[in-house]
Parts: sequence; structure tokens; C-alpha cells
Amino acid sequence: MGSKYSRSLRCCLPLWAFVLQVAFIILFFFISYDTPQVDQKLMETYQVFQDLTLMAALGFGFLSSSFRRHSWSSVAFNLFILALGVQGSILLERFLSWPFLQDVAINLFSIRTATMSTIPVLISAGAVLGKANLVQLAVMVLMEAAAFGAVRLVDKKVFHMEDHIIAMHGHVFGAYFGLLVAWCLSRGVGEKAQTEKAQMATSSSLFAMLGTFLLWIFWPSFNSALLEWPNEKKTAVLNTYYALAVSAVTATSMSALSHPQGKINMVHIHNAVLAGGVAVGAPCFLITSPWIAMVLGLTAGLISIGGAKCLPFPHLAVGF
Amino acid sequence: MGSKYSRSLRCCLPLWAFVLQVAFIILFFFISYDTPQVDQKLMETYQVFQDLTLMAALGFGFLSSSFRRHSWSSVAFNLFILALGVQGSILLERFLSWPFLQDVAINLFSIRTATMSTIPVLISAGAVLGKANLVQLAVMVLMEAAAFGAVRLVDKKVFHMEDHIIAMHGHVFGAYFGLLVAWCLSRGVGEKAQTEKAQMATSSSLFAMLGTFLLWIFWPSFNSALLEWPNEKKTAVLNTYYALAVSAVTATSMSALSHPQGKINMVHIHNAVLAGGVAVGAPCFLITSPWIAMVLGLTAGLISIGGAKCLPFPHLAVGF
Amino acid sequence: MGSKYSRSLRCCLPLWAFVLQVAFIILFFFISYDTPQVDQKLMETYQVFQDLTLMAALGFGFLSSSFRRHSWSSVAFNLFILALGVQGSILLERFLSWPFLQDVAINLFSIRTATMSTIPVLISAGAVLGKANLVQLAVMVLMEAAAFGAVRLVDKKVFHMEDHIIAMHGHVFGAYFGLLVAWCLSRGVGEKAQTEKAQMATSSSLFAMLGTFLLWIFWPSFNSALLEWPNEKKTAVLNTYYALAVSAVTATSMSALSHPQGKINMVHIHNAVLAGGVAVGAPCFLITSPWIAMVLGLTAGLISIGGAKCLPFPHLAVGF
Repeated sequence: MGSKYSRSLRCCLPLWAFVLQVAFIILFFFISYDTPQVDQKLMETYQVFQDLTLMAALGFGFLSSSFRRHSWSSVAFNLFILALGVQGSILLERFLSWPFLQDVAINLFSIRTATMSTIPVLISAGAVLGKANLVQLAVMVLMEAAAFGAVRLVDKKVFHMEDHIIAMHGHVFGAYFGLLVAWCLSRGVGEKAQTEKAQMATSSSLFAMLGTFLLWIFWPSFNSALLEWPNEKKTAVLNTYYALAVSAVTATSMSALSHPQGKINMVHIHNAVLAGGVAVGAPCFLITSPWIAMVLGLTAGLISIGGAKCLPFPHLAVGF
Repeated sequence: MGSKYSRSLRCCLPLWAFVLQVAFIILFFFISYDTPQVDQKLMETYQVFQDLTLMAALGFGFLSSSFRRHSWSSVAFNLFILALGVQGSILLERFLSWPFLQDVAINLFSIRTATMSTIPVLISAGAVLGKANLVQLAVMVLMEAAAFGAVRLVDKKVFHMEDHIIAMHGHVFGAYFGLLVAWCLSRGVGEKAQTEKAQMATSSSLFAMLGTFLLWIFWPSFNSALLEWPNEKKTAVLNTYYALAVSAVTATSMSALSHPQGKINMVHIHNAVLAGGVAVGAPCFLITSPWIAMVLGLTAGLISIGGAKCLPFPHLAVGF
Repeated sequence: MGSKYSRSLRCCLPLWAFVLQVAFIILFFFISYDTPQVDQKLMETYQVFQDLTLMAALGFGFLSSSFRRHSWSSVAFNLFILALGVQGSILLERFLSWPFLQDVAINLFSIRTATMSTIPVLISAGAVLGKANLVQLAVMVLMEAAAFGAVRLVDKKVFHMEDHIIAMHGHVFGAYFGLLVAWCLSRGVGEKAQTEKAQMATSSSLFAMLGTFLLWIFWPSFNSALLEWPNEKKTAVLNTYYALAVSAVTATSMSALSHPQGKINMVHIHNAVLAGGVAVGAPCFLITSPWIAMVLGLTAGLISIGGAKCLPFPHLAVGF
């Protein structure tokens, strides 16, 4: 990509983002809130929605903060993607169900679902940070949001999948999409530049731990967010918690075992601590005994530590 | 102000703060908890109250942490103001309604309202950090708490305003009060010293992002905290969320647009990301369509980015 | 302790931890979830459980992050202890009540109680960080978990104490256990090495503030977690909040008073800010007037600041 073209694009992009925002507002002109009704579960929905926003804005934001020289700009861009992606997902869901307009009301549930749909984009963005500039990232975000919207529509209308299962597909989709983009980008860049950019900023490593821990704490909310029945929700929370606990122990001990002096590798922790929650994601509301979830967590932790030595894109482990 | 006088005051001040605390305890001797009754909404109130405490202690604390050389002491002082201010507000509300003592019971709602009343003081404190010493700050806090208490009383008894509207006045009050104090203080200090102190500590810039993001995430709680009806609460949460999302996108793209190389200015982000939530604060429970909240968010984001180039006190943008 | 023995143990330990994890999974094979039933209070329990996990993983983790050179590894080890300890506590509670197996079902309540039982271990771990290596820490954790399990069993079966009172014993138990271990370890280590390791990492001091503040914010959840009646819960939350507010003001002003130039000592803040919540812990659901809780908070703050000048293990102040 020519440097001159890139520079002019870099100046235009913020303008495009602004125009897109104005266009979104105009489209929202056709959308209204649902009719007022007494909603007993308002605060429950609000709590789940807040947990998801916290995960998306702080968790994924700070998780990727250690991999870039200008770490705070990656945190800011994470919020940008989230805020734009949620608006886009709400509009997409609204206009894709065109003949049934009265079915899709705008309420707290729509924001919750839209946040879930934006998380795959945040996962992919983590894979290419430090490799792509702001323009390339923005183009990637738009392409991926549209692609995942199409996948969701097909899943829902053709395969009649439930929202929960579709959302769990999102991890894998986000990870593969990120891998693909990272592979395309890395062909044009020298090896030396890559290594330099991938180096950790030591001072911000505790922020990455903060992001990881926030994801670890709120992952049960994430896995149970789109389940409607209280019993399914409870089972999902319990299974996710056990899987996460086992994968945290496995990751720490395996990381120390593979180090000659028994020290813990921080990159291993970032990956493998969350692997259990991802592994148990799709079936978490069906598992009836804790030991099944724990075996899944153990397996995921082992694979994740093993994979971290081969895979060049450690952040994608969140998606697998 | 004489250096010797200031030094002796600086040694006396902690003693005064301690005496004030003891006096508060003696005054609390006349206050008891309300009679026990089955309260179904206990956990809801507790959740809102916790969100507000999180915003006040962590959000505003870390937001101002980047503007001082000794950043952690500004964080500690933020907690000091919060803890003292909440106690003072509860006492003030209790004794200002003197003839109707049985009306004001001490419960979770009183702490919630008192936290809302203390937030303007935290906003003003952010405006003078790095310009005032501990003594000046403490005097300012006491004066402002009393002044805002009087404003609240007049709003309530004379204009019969609701708690929600009064709380939203707090931003503006806090911002103007902070501006006034900063203007008074800056007359005595050389330009050079000011510039030096206002310089960012790079290492703590991610903490300021953390504070900003926590405020962004919990702002819907803030705007809906004092609304009693579930439908008003829901509308307030939705409108605040949309306004915040739009102002985040606007702030990021406008900040990049105004930079010659398309980079994002962190100070812009701190201001303008929250501008949408502030703009939509007072009318948030009345707006019936998302696009109105979004237009307010867009306008607030644009004004905030524009203002950040002229205004010398960027933290006050939270209040406007 | 021979260096060679220690080194071979250091390599074996991760393997042992992994084997322990596998053994836990096999034991969990005998445990199943409780029968599905409509649980109206699911989200309430989940919220309390999440607050506790946040305190345990982030609060205690970052509180101890400033006392070690490799601060992030102490944060990671904190999560390791938490994840292993919760599993162990659930198994212990299950198998100690052997003849009444049907009484102990695995649900969100069991994880909540198990997290409460693990917090003393985290407190002790904070006391020996920087003095013990990973092996010594792990042995200590296992010994303490077993010892506290025995104490809990005796408290429950012999003295018929309630869960809430037992959990409040945990602070004292954890602190004394940590003191004992630290005393044993310090006999073999030179004074110079100790001082060097105890030195603060300045860059991570704001993280310690973050940990302290998270503990401060969520301490009312901690003190009310195991109380069943809404009125007891409410009283516990209110008393804890007032005690915390008073001890925060007392700690800040006393710390500034004892410094010749009126500056605040960060180590004082870490200790004394939380002292009020600890002091009010056991009786918090019985206190009927706010001023009693506030006097307790004032006393605890004063003792804590005074003790910080004599005690060599500042982190233990959380436990007293």
C-alpha cells in the first residue's frame, strides 16, 4: 500500500467515521423505544448488560494494552469499536427483520444482544494490534461486523439456532477472522518490525493482568447472558465458574512447569486462564455435573499452554 | 499567602479534619436507622448505591490521577473528600429538615442521595488539582459542600424541584465553582509553574483511561439513580447509553481529525467521551426516541472537542 | 533449607499442583448440582458472589502488588490460590458432612461460602509475599486451608456458630497464621534482604490504591454476604459503610498529622482505610445506631495508624 495513499486515507478516515456516525443517527430516526410496561426484571437485565459492557470496554481494552507501544490509544480504539459496533448491530438487527418491524423493539435486551455481537470484532482487533494502523483496523471492523451479521442471520433464519449458540460461534469467527487479517498484513511487513512491536511494555503488564482478571470474573455473566430460563442461567454460571477455576490452576502450574526455573510466563496466563470459559461456552447450560465442566477446563488449559508455544498470535487463544 | 502561615496551617489541617470527624460522630448520635421493615428492593438499591460509590471513588479518583506529579495522593484525597462529604450531606439533609425529623430516616437511599450530592465537589476538586495544596483544597471542599447544600435546599423548598433535576444541576455548579477557585488561585502563581504541574505523568495515563472508562460504563446508573419509576429509570438508562456511545465515536474521530497525523489526543478522550452523558443528564427520562439522545450526544462531543482547545481546565468539561 | 532441595522442589511443585487439580476433579465426580427449582433470588446471589470474587481476585491481588519486585506474578499467584482454594473448600465442606450427603448441594451459595473461606488464605499470603518462594507459599496455602477448615468445623458443630461469625473469625485466623509463617521464614533470612524486598515499586503504587479502593467499595458486600435476613443484611451494609467512611477520614488525617510536612503515607492508607470495615465485621448486623459503628471505625483507624509504625507486616492490618 503506497505511503501517500495511506497518509491521505489516514486523514480522511476520522471524517468517514464521523459521517458514518451521522448516518447512524439518521437511521435511528426510524426506531423508537418499545411501549412502556411494568418490567419487574429491569434491574436484572441492567446488571447483565453492565457486566457485558465492563468486559467489552475494560476487559478486552486492557488485555490488548500490553502489546503496543502507545498502549492507551489501543484502549481508546477498543472503546471506539465498541460504541460504533453496538449501534451498527442494533440497526442491522432492526433492518434485516424488515417485514416484521413491530417485533424488534429497542430496549435493554437489544443493547445486550448487540454488545454480544460486537465482542467478536474486539477479539479480532486484538489479533492485529501492533500490525495494523488505524485505517486498516477501521476497514477490518466494518467488514467483519457485516460478515458476522450475515452469519448470524443465516444461523437464525436457516438453522433456527438460539441466540446463545450463535453468540458462542462469535469467538471462533472472531479468532479466524483476526488470524486471516493478521496473515494478510504480515506478508507486507518485515520480521524485524513485527518482533519489535510485539514486545511487551513492562510498565503496562499489570494493566493486561487487570483486563484478564476482569474477563475471568465476568465470564460467567458472558456465558449466561443470552439464556432466558433461570435454571439454564444458573447451570451456565456454575459450569463456567468451575471450568474457569480449573483452567486458571492448570495454566499457572503448567506455565511454571514448562519454565526451567519454575517461573510463570505472563503471556501464558493471559491465554489459558480464560480458555476454560471459552471451551465450556456453547454447552454450558446443558452440562449436568461439575466434573464434566472441570475436565473441559483442564483440557482447554493444557491445549492453550501448548498452543502458546506454537501460535504466533497469542490473543486469539481467547477465541478458541 | 505567607509561606509560614501556610506551613503552620498545613500542620493544623489534619487535626482540624480529625476534629470535624469527631464532631460528625457526635452529631450522628441524634440519628437512628429507620424502623425495620421488609424491603423487597434492598438489593436493587444496594446495586445502584455501589455503582455510584465505584464511580465516585475509582472513576473521579483515577480521572484526575494523570494531572499531578504525586498521582496517588490525589487519588487518596479523592476518597477523603468522598467519605467526609457523604457524612456531611447526610447530616445537612437531616438537620435542615428540622421540624420534620421523623420524615428523614437513615437508610440506603440517604447514602445514595448523599453520594450524588458529593460528586459536584469531586468535579471541582479535579479542576484545581496541581494548583492548590491540601489546605486550600480542604477549605474549598467545606465551602462548596455548604453552598451546594443551600442551593439544593432552595431548589427543593422554593422551586419544588425533584431530586433528579437538582442532582443534574450539580455538574454545572461543581464546574463553575471549580473554575472560580482555579481562577482565584492562578492569579498568584506564575505561568511556568502552572505548565509544569499540568504536564501529564505518562506512566499514569492508563489509569486516567481506567477512570474515564469506569465513568463511561456506570454513567447510566448515575443518570437514573434518583428516578423512582421503573419506566423512567429504563428510559433514562437507554437514552444515556445512546448519548454516550455517540459522543465516544464523535470524540475519537474528531480528535483524530484535528491532529495533523490522525492521532488521538488523550485529553480530548477524557473530556468528550463523557460529554454525551452529561448533556443528556437532566432530560434523560423524558426523551422518547433514541435519535434525540444521539443528536445531543453528537453536539456535546463536538462542543467538548472544540472547547478543549480553548478552555484551560479540561477536567471541567465533565461538568458542562 | 538447602538450595538444591529447594530447586528440585521448585520444579516438582507445579507438577504437584497439577496432580492436586486432577485429584480434585476426580473427587468432584461424586458431587452433582442440586435439583432444578425456580429460584427467584438467583440474580441477588449471583451479584453477591461476583462482588466477593472481584474483591478476592482484584482487591487482594492488587493490594499486594506493590510489595514485590515482580508484582504481576504475585497477582497471578493470588488468582491461583483463589481458584484452588475455592475448589478445596467446596470438597471439604462436602466430605466433612459425610453422613448427610443430601444436605449439601452444589449451588451458587456453596461457591459464595467457599470464597469467604478462601479469603483468610489470601490475607496470610499477603503477609509473606517477598519473603517466601512459590514452594513455601503453596505449602503454606495447603496447611492453612486444612487448618481453617478444621476451625470452621469445630465452630459449627461444637459451638453452633453461624456462618457469618465463623467467616469473621477468618480475618484473625489468617492474620495470625501469616504472622507465624512470616516469623518462621524471617529467622533464616538476613535483615538486608528483607528490607530490599519490602521496598515499594513506585510504578505499581497506583495499582495498590486500586486494590485498596476495590476492597473499600465492596467491603459492605463482604460483611453482609452470609446473612440471610434482608433486615440483617441492610443493617450490616449500613454499619459497614459508616465505619469505612470514618476510618478513611481518620486514616488520611492521622497519616498527614504524623508526617512533619503534612504528607500522606501510602502504606498508612492501605492499612487504615479498611480497618473500620474489619472492626465492625462480626457485630455489624447487631449495631442499631450509626454512631456506634462510627466510633468503632474511628478507634480502628487510630489503632491501625499507630500500629503501622510498630508492626513490621503492614498487610496484616487487614486481618486485625
